[in-house]
Amino acid sequence: MAVFTEVSDEALAAFLGAYDIGAAVALKGISEGTENTTYLLHTERGPFILTLFEKRVAAKDLPYFLALMEHLAARGVPCPTPIKDRGGTDLRALCGRPASIVTFLPGLWPRRATPPQCRAFGAAMAGLHRAAADFPASRRNDLALRDLRPILASRRDRADELRPGLAAELDDALSGIEARWPDALPAGTIHADLFPDNVFFRGETVTGIIDFYFACTDFLAYDIAVALNAWCFEISGEFNVTKAAQMLAGYQTVRRLEPEERAALPVLAAGAALRFAATRLVDWFDRPDGALVRPKDPLEFVHRLAFHRGAAGPEAYGI
Amino acid sequence: MAVFTEVSDEALAAFLGAYDIGAAVALKGISEGTENTTYLLHTERGPFILTLFEKRVAAKDLPYFLALMEHLAARGVPCPTPIKDRGGTDLRALCGRPASIVTFLPGLWPRRATPPQCRAFGAAMAGLHRAAADFPASRRNDLALRDLRPILASRRDRADELRPGLAAELDDALSGIEARWPDALPAGTIHADLFPDNVFFRGETVTGIIDFYFACTDFLAYDIAVALNAWCFEISGEFNVTKAAQMLAGYQTVRRLEPEERAALPVLAAGAALRFAATRLVDWFDRPDGALVRPKDPLEFVHRLAFHRGAAGPEAYGI
Repeated sequence: MAVFTEVSDEALAAFLGAYDIGAAVALKGISEGTENTTYLLHTERGPFILTLFEKRVAAKDLPYFLALMEHLAARGVPCPTPIKDRGGTDLRALCGRPASIVTFLPGLWPRRATPPQCRAFGAAMAGLHRAAADFPASRRNDLALRDLRPILASRRDRADELRPGLAAELDDALSGIEARWPDALPAGTIHADLFPDNVFFRGETVTGIIDFYFACTDFLAYDIAVALNAWCFEISGEFNVTKAAQMLAGYQTVRRLEPEERAALPVLAAGAALRFAATRLVDWFDRPDGALVRPKDPLEFVHRLAFHRGAAGPEAYGI
Repeated sequence: MAVFTEVSDEALAAFLGAYDIGAAVALKGISEGTENTTYLLHTERGPFILTLFEKRVAAKDLPYFLALMEHLAARGVPCPTPIKDRGGTDLRALCGRPASIVTFLPGLWPRRATPPQCRAFGAAMAGLHRAAADFPASRRNDLALRDLRPILASRRDRADELRPGLAAELDDALSGIEARWPDALPAGTIHADLFPDNVFFRGETVTGIIDFYFACTDFLAYDIAVALNAWCFEISGEFNVTKAAQMLAGYQTVRRLEPEERAALPVLAAGAALRFAATRLVDWFDRPDGALVRPKDPLEFVHRLAFHRGAAGPEAYGI
């Protein structure tokens, strides 16, 4: 969600002058995403998404993200396609920020995904992994397990404000996950943030996968681990194994999981839960001034973390 | 700005089933406005605005606002037109809130209005006043001068946290404005919140006036007083008399101001500045939990209030 940067008419007109998509007809700040300023831009040619990259996204990584979207879109993944200006560039400057225009994707993100949507999403995730297999660039996951220890340490003295004993609980979880983390699994380019609000549907058909600004090179099954956290818990906190089973079944219609990937699901899911607990903990205590952001509850992922730590094996996920 | 209420696919589909505008193609929360949940809704028929009215807007007033928009749109004012369902109703329930769909208006609101835009806006404001002249309903302005004393009193003990002496300064301003407030001026239906983000342009042409949820019956010149505050101060705090003169000249191309309206401009403008200072003061100390709202600085309007209190007469506004 976010409009961190207001774009004036003059700045927008000058920016659009470099493209062949006509003049601006309307510009609406969108309340989705937490990292960047995102506008729905209607031009004479139709709707587009205009993103101004704020400081949380490293400028050096932007060409990677845009190239990945272009690569995937060319292979039929329903993801935004960067629009190039007349000089062939898809990354320009607007209001002092790097900025890009991408295609607008139809569809609605599921506020409460159904099992058939989970299945369709699983297949789309595997399709993304397959389409990215020949993507030549790589990027380190900067929220990998090894990055969580300094993040957690930095908020250690405040974690207990949220719940007494939380700091020790997270330390203990991290040590346990580190000890069980796999050394090697099939790896490649992953999205790394496949939450329902990044996946659009019309009915039970996936029409869009957006927000590639955490994409990186990591275990493919780590994307599944994030998705198990993001799609399969009910608001009540309960794990919905039907949704998980459908997601994994949908995934495997496109790409079969290796036995070691299945075996690693509980620890990968615990690691993913800890990653979101850790970054939400930081956001909880560091509400950026001037950002239209509602911090998300870190304890939601602490609860999910406990579920995964208690999972006896991959069958906990219906596989 | 705001998405206070998330709308599920199922709820949206059921809601749209009552209308003849096709199925939803996309739904994006919009980061504009602070009172309601606003979505840009694309259906098979094109873009619309879907508003869910949250508790700050009184449900009993909604038929008034919608009827006013319909009245104005029918008379050529570029304002949203409420969409009726097959039963002829333009106000339904969605996710437990009153909700309505209105037409989408093209255009961009000016982040920094130019003098020609101020002139065009002034003419559009007068056009609104003229078109509303035969609107039969009325609604009391519940943020009129007499309402400010209890609002200010409720935050009196905290105002000095923002600036030492502020509480006394506002009390003094209120008493001074009350003493000079006109008893009678030409009255009618006003918008009462004509800030630049509620007025869309393409170039120097007004293409839309939105957000009628403060509309009420009051002095017509009070709309001008709000607009002098909202359009004519630079970010540096300086009053731009050129913009004011253009706005007033534009207004008078459509509706001539009476001598007593001109004479009242300084006190009306001071009253309007105090109204926004007062409500911002409340919002500053009552940040609603869960709302994606950045409170606006009350001191901005305290500064504007001081300017108007120092204005010797209407010539301070270039008239």
